[in-house]
Amino acid sequence: MPEVHFEVDTTRPPDDQPGANPFNRWHPELEPVVHTEPGGTVRLECLDWTGGQIVDNDDPNEVRDVDLNQVHYLSGPVEVDGAEPGDLLKVTLLDIGVLNERSEFGFTGIFSQQNGGGFLTDHFPDAAKAIWDLDGTYVSSRHVPDVHYEGKIHPGLLGTAPSQELLDEWVDREATLIDQHDDDPESIPNHPTGESQPPVASPPTPDGAQAGEAEGDVADRIEQEGARTVPPREHGGNTDIKDLSLGSTIYFPVFVEGAKFGIGDIHASQGDGEITFCGAIEMAGYVDLKFELVKDGMSKHGISHPIFEPGHRGPNFSEYVVFEGYSVTEDGEQRYMDPHVAYRQACLEAIEYLKKFGYTGEQALMILGTVPIEGRHSGVVDIPNACSTLALPKDVFEFDISPDELGEAADRGQVPITDDPLS
Amino acid sequence: MPEVHFEVDTTRPPDDQPGANPFNRWHPELEPVVHTEPGGTVRLECLDWTGGQIVDNDDPNEVRDVDLNQVHYLSGPVEVDGAEPGDLLKVTLLDIGVLNERSEFGFTGIFSQQNGGGFLTDHFPDAAKAIWDLDGTYVSSRHVPDVHYEGKIHPGLLGTAPSQELLDEWVDREATLIDQHDDDPESIPNHPTGESQPPVASPPTPDGAQAGEAEGDVADRIEQEGARTVPPREHGGNTDIKDLSLGSTIYFPVFVEGAKFGIGDIHASQGDGEITFCGAIEMAGYVDLKFELVKDGMSKHGISHPIFEPGHRGPNFSEYVVFEGYSVTEDGEQRYMDPHVAYRQACLEAIEYLKKFGYTGEQALMILGTVPIEGRHSGVVDIPNACSTLALPKDVFEFDISPDELGEAADRGQVPITDDPLS
Amino acid sequence: MPEVHFEVDTTRPPDDQPGANPFNRWHPELEPVVHTEPGGTVRLECLDWTGGQIVDNDDPNEVRDVDLNQVHYLSGPVEVDGAEPGDLLKVTLLDIGVLNERSEFGFTGIFSQQNGGGFLTDHFPDAAKAIWDLDGTYVSSRHVPDVHYEGKIHPGLLGTAPSQELLDEWVDREATLIDQHDDDPESIPNHPTGESQPPVASPPTPDGAQAGEAEGDVADRIEQEGARTVPPREHGGNTDIKDLSLGSTIYFPVFVEGAKFGIGDIHASQGDGEITFCGAIEMAGYVDLKFELVKDGMSKHGISHPIFEPGHRGPNFSEYVVFEGYSVTEDGEQRYMDPHVAYRQACLEAIEYLKKFGYTGEQALMILGTVPIEGRHSGVVDIPNACSTLALPKDVFEFDISPDELGEAADRGQVPITDDPLS
Amino acid sequence: MPEVHFEVDTTRPPDDQPGANPFNRWHPELEPVVHTEPGGTVRLECLDWTGGQIVDNDDPNEVRDVDLNQVHYLSGPVEVDGAEPGDLLKVTLLDIGVLNERSEFGFTGIFSQQNGGGFLTDHFPDAAKAIWDLDGTYVSSRHVPDVHYEGKIHPGLLGTAPSQELLDEWVDREATLIDQHDDDPESIPNHPTGESQPPVASPPTPDGAQAGEAEGDVADRIEQEGARTVPPREHGGNTDIKDLSLGSTIYFPVFVEGAKFGIGDIHASQGDGEITFCGAIEMAGYVDLKFELVKDGMSKHGISHPIFEPGHRGPNFSEYVVFEGYSVTEDGEQRYMDPHVAYRQACLEAIEYLKKFGYTGEQALMILGTVPIEGRHSGVVDIPNACSTLALPKDVFEFDISPDELGEAADRGQVPITDDPLS
Repeated sequence: MPEVHFEVDTTRPPDDQPGANPFNRWHPELEPVVHTEPGGTVRLECLDWTGGQIVDNDDPNEVRDVDLNQVHYLSGPVEVDGAEPGDLLKVTLLDIGVLNERSEFGFTGIFSQQNGGGFLTDHFPDAAKAIWDLDGTYVSSRHVPDVHYEGKIHPGLLGTAPSQELLDEWVDREATLIDQHDDDPESIPNHPTGESQPPVASPPTPDGAQAGEAEGDVADRIEQEGARTVPPREHGGNTDIKDLSLGSTIYFPVFVEGAKFGIGDIHASQGDGEITFCGAIEMAGYVDLKFELVKDGMSKHGISHPIFEPGHRGPNFSEYVVFEGYSVTEDGEQRYMDPHVAYRQACLEAIEYLKKFGYTGEQALMILGTVPIEGRHSGVVDIPNACSTLALPKDVFEFDISPDELGEAADRGQVPITDDPLS
Repeated sequence: MPEVHFEVDTTRPPDDQPGANPFNRWHPELEPVVHTEPGGTVRLECLDWTGGQIVDNDDPNEVRDVDLNQVHYLSGPVEVDGAEPGDLLKVTLLDIGVLNERSEFGFTGIFSQQNGGGFLTDHFPDAAKAIWDLDGTYVSSRHVPDVHYEGKIHPGLLGTAPSQELLDEWVDREATLIDQHDDDPESIPNHPTGESQPPVASPPTPDGAQAGEAEGDVADRIEQEGARTVPPREHGGNTDIKDLSLGSTIYFPVFVEGAKFGIGDIHASQGDGEITFCGAIEMAGYVDLKFELVKDGMSKHGISHPIFEPGHRGPNFSEYVVFEGYSVTEDGEQRYMDPHVAYRQACLEAIEYLKKFGYTGEQALMILGTVPIEGRHSGVVDIPNACSTLALPKDVFEFDISPDELGEAADRGQVPITDDPLS
Repeated sequence: MPEVHFEVDTTRPPDDQPGANPFNRWHPELEPVVHTEPGGTVRLECLDWTGGQIVDNDDPNEVRDVDLNQVHYLSGPVEVDGAEPGDLLKVTLLDIGVLNERSEFGFTGIFSQQNGGGFLTDHFPDAAKAIWDLDGTYVSSRHVPDVHYEGKIHPGLLGTAPSQELLDEWVDREATLIDQHDDDPESIPNHPTGESQPPVASPPTPDGAQAGEAEGDVADRIEQEGARTVPPREHGGNTDIKDLSLGSTIYFPVFVEGAKFGIGDIHASQGDGEITFCGAIEMAGYVDLKFELVKDGMSKHGISHPIFEPGHRGPNFSEYVVFEGYSVTEDGEQRYMDPHVAYRQACLEAIEYLKKFGYTGEQALMILGTVPIEGRHSGVVDIPNACSTLALPKDVFEFDISPDELGEAADRGQVPITDDPLS
Repeated sequence: MPEVHFEVDTTRPPDDQPGANPFNRWHPELEPVVHTEPGGTVRLECLDWTGGQIVDNDDPNEVRDVDLNQVHYLSGPVEVDGAEPGDLLKVTLLDIGVLNERSEFGFTGIFSQQNGGGFLTDHFPDAAKAIWDLDGTYVSSRHVPDVHYEGKIHPGLLGTAPSQELLDEWVDREATLIDQHDDDPESIPNHPTGESQPPVASPPTPDGAQAGEAEGDVADRIEQEGARTVPPREHGGNTDIKDLSLGSTIYFPVFVEGAKFGIGDIHASQGDGEITFCGAIEMAGYVDLKFELVKDGMSKHGISHPIFEPGHRGPNFSEYVVFEGYSVTEDGEQRYMDPHVAYRQACLEAIEYLKKFGYTGEQALMILGTVPIEGRHSGVVDIPNACSTLALPKDVFEFDISPDELGEAADRGQVPITDDPLS
């Protein structure tokens, strides 16, 4: 294994870590804490994205009450010698795993509509939680019985630091959206409530900010100005791409000297979309990374976002049940070419289907959030209906979910749900 | 092979076919022309979706001038004995192929912005066309050199007839959208021009309508009232799902006695999204189908849209270059959780990437429209940016498109493009 | 489709065909009947390997009585302009299919021990037969219920003509083996009976020989001297490789001017090993082929046998039950590193396993012969036991064959078996 | 992670281990050192199969001089409560990995013909060695440049203890073979030299024997009578099946109370056949196992050898170059249906092919031994030639090995080879 360059202690708070402290804002002035030559490999340990706010118990109120200003705690930055703006930073995911004997569980949360929300928050407004056992390559949950499968392990969040110019662009364009929402909440398509909560974007805020190892004025600037880590952006970031998994090689645009790469938000498995928001199987863990450079790669390849070559680790499935959705809302409203609505409908169809086998809606939602489902843009041109599909692998279930095989619905229990939605 | 129940002659107009005439509107009163018991298999031949308006030459103006009121010409309806509303009609795609010695080419079109448009019509406003050779399992094009691959053959359009109630619902909800667009074209997110063309939806119109074998008042009603075939809806229809390919089994909701199943719009291959609109490799051909019934299947399974189990024919690839897009427009505008914009950005990135290898933008667009790319809803919860990805299989190219392998761009010619955008 | 260059009529005998007559011996002087430039594509039609001796009925005695001197009837030879000894002939399998409305069934035979035998003839000495329906990409059999799958279609036999020198080498080395067997039948390891039947090799014989379109002295020489088509040899020939399927590209050594390529023995599907001998789903059909040349390819690549790149058509499966066998015979005799015995044991284990689900031994044998099982040389160095494995895809069955799911054995009928083993 | 039940220290000799000592003979009286209920999970650490005789350096003489009487050092036995003869022991491979910071390299050896030999020992008689870096999911070697791939990690050896009756049967049948070889070395087909070395089987011997934690008379009996671990047998054992990899579930026959399961010989990757004998990437490591029981499973399923269901971890490849071999020896001798010879020929063809790209024969052999090649029994009935194939995945190379792409052979160095073949 590569040398551990970023040790974490999951029993201690994120701002009192044994080596370096993680950071949770993106900023050009982030202070590198790991240094490597091109060709070097490093191990970085990572807290879970919330920094330990959710633990292995049956209390869903932790999810209800999570402080989202703190997320996501990231390990790094890694400075790669010779990386310059315009280069591509080539990163190979050599290994990803749990912190043995230190943190060996995973969690999935349905966020409260008052604190985070999610893709189907109008259908599932209350906080809920499931705990997963991580048994090597397999995952299973006492809260979601009869699913047992080899997960698609990957980092949800990884990227390079923005330049000041790019950071300004991010902040400005997101502020414009926030302003529009403040002016007229109903003007934002697909906002789940049309109200003030959940927000449409997260502007910079020093509340909960952690600047890593930066100090003094620099730390102040990072905390005041740093971009929130929630959305993916031109540098990668919180892409939550399940296929960017073990064995993948990613090429990131470089925007500052040294690249200043950060990573975190490890998922033991996730379906396309990560539809419960805190929807993957979230975990603390480690990642082993190899860093290389493609000089002047952005212009050579004509790209301004990351690209990647996936690994070969699967899990590879051949048997699926596929659900379809089109861009008509569940209230019957016709939208124009809206894959957001289309994918929602496919998800809702799959949830109803799984309920016939005895799962609750919350369990079904968590299955779709964590199993490596394939969520596809199947059609995007047939006016006015976008068509999205959701392919659910059959082999993750310990019983047969084929359409021809419908038997009696079993009692499959339930996940813990908040009984008092207000904290 | 099953008995041919719907013979077509691609040299004759769609309203003068040797057996039955195809239909191009959805209506409960469609006249069945094929009858089968559950368990029965039939071969249906199909015109290409335009009914022969585009032929094997280098003239792009056929695409510019296509009459879209006529589309899509569908074969059937097939009446299945005993099918009743609430059942699921189980259809297995036993075989799909070309009409040997009768129609052995495929075409891909970029529609004019004044007539059809498409996913990237603001970037590619002029009509263009490519012709494909269909060599058994392989496809290739004189207009798009150095791609040669085993296509993902499938019917773009297949479904059951709506009930009167469902038809009314379709027409009403789409009319509401059209009205909204008429009132305020700019109020429709993701409309590519914000102007009157292309339309946001296609209302019923007798222009170009063909009622199949219905006659008299019934034919009049079908032509006047029948739903256009462009969008997918609760009955399936124009789903354009590439994975619903050879060997797949689909379960369709039944809305009228006998189900009245229709099919057409065969594609020799297509990528997720069919992004050029006429973006698959369009072809005339035949389909061999097996029909079965799941009685009362809609409520048993809790579904209101088709579901399916994919076949095992691949083509299976393991090597990809994957492009990412987020919901910020190419003009830098921040959208809220908009996978439409995100997938557009991934497509635009891939096009720029392919241009570095010597393809023109139009060629690149046609590659993405026809190669079985995987277009995924990778992230749908990380406010405000949806993340979509586009996975391009490397093996379809006759040279290496890996990021590490960039050499000199070759001259790869161009597809025929309209030089006079007005007809 | 390419032009048909070799039309067959399955209702007429192999020596009275409408175009050219097929050939069933390999010889350098074979008379080419199809000519093509490098880059050309042709369609060849093919009789089934027996030339129509077995038809669609329930009579197993056809298998018992088949004249094996006649096999295999091959289409061609194809002469490729410019092909010279030392070149590689590159052949792409563009398409393979049934002869619609002319011959639409397949058959599998267990040969009698007195006429052909097979891999397990000592366990299954009597002739038996199963007829398969070929429904597009799917196969099924009234004699083997509850299996229904997408077959792995491929030509069992394809190759180039030998030079005189190579032919002589073939005949000599096989004669040596025959002599050894005649001298001491028990000296031949793995001969199934240790007796005179079945033979260990098939020497040239004019009985049943058909020289194609050669005439006069040349025809006489071909019939007298021509190598039998049963074994694969340096030119390819009867390789029976299931993975050399639709979409594959094969590189054949060229031994004579023009290459003189022949093909036949089409299989709708087959498992690794083709263990029932006539074990694939045998069919008449067509193949569409593209021919190219790699000049001086044999020495460039250092090869003296064909190599190939498989297509991408699968069928791709992810769920298997795998059986193991080692090189100890079913009588408990220890063999030294003998994968023949090892694979036999894996097959016998799989047969017993399938019998627990209600299949007869003969049905189980035919399942293993026709389903695309993976038969692997798992271990070949652990003295004294070779280890072979047999991976059976679960999805080809219409019920669950998982080890955890064993229920009551159903009555699944039986295949027709000879009741009088002597003809 | 499960509790570590069998800790190893790779810096200490195999008979002085910190917890329990490993065993290297199979015997019914083995002393269990790990106990579990059905449903339990345990972690076992394992020495490499030689117990540390080969280390990370460039000295090939370690391979030349390895003491093969000592192999294989196995961890366990694990006693499973309630396991009785006739049951199946269901074992799930939850995780497999390296011993971080303790032993992080792998090795591949070509054994000397005078000490071990191997599948191609007559072509490669001298000892050679390669060292591999294990970078998470990737492997690479300074001795075999330009290959870099995700390995197929698996235990080469795992099984249950034999009953006394079964042990006697093993010893007797192998002794018969040894006697035959002693009487007439040339009577053993496929023995690589026809001489006394390498042996045809390994009889019990107390030399090098280690009885685990058994003591006194029991230990003496184990050492004197215990079966050697080299071959796979009815209990599993040294199957060296690459597909029995991470995530797999295996069902082992139980022959003694408690099953007495042992495991070792971990491979970071291996091709079908493990053709260099010490041919996988050998490593020390850990395995996490879940144990369950299927009561009376042997008769329920009709099996007498292990069966398994493979995991979904791949690595999954779609692009291959496939080599063919038939049962004619490289000296031109015709064998009867001999897949051993056939697979040898396929291997030799592949080696010559790789040499054209600049590898030495030894490097090519090690590539085929370690890359997850597919080695198939493609044809086993076409008298007299068995046909075996070897499918080499293209993506494991950092350059293109396609037949169309042959360029100049690069200088790719060499592995360390013994210069004095005698120790």
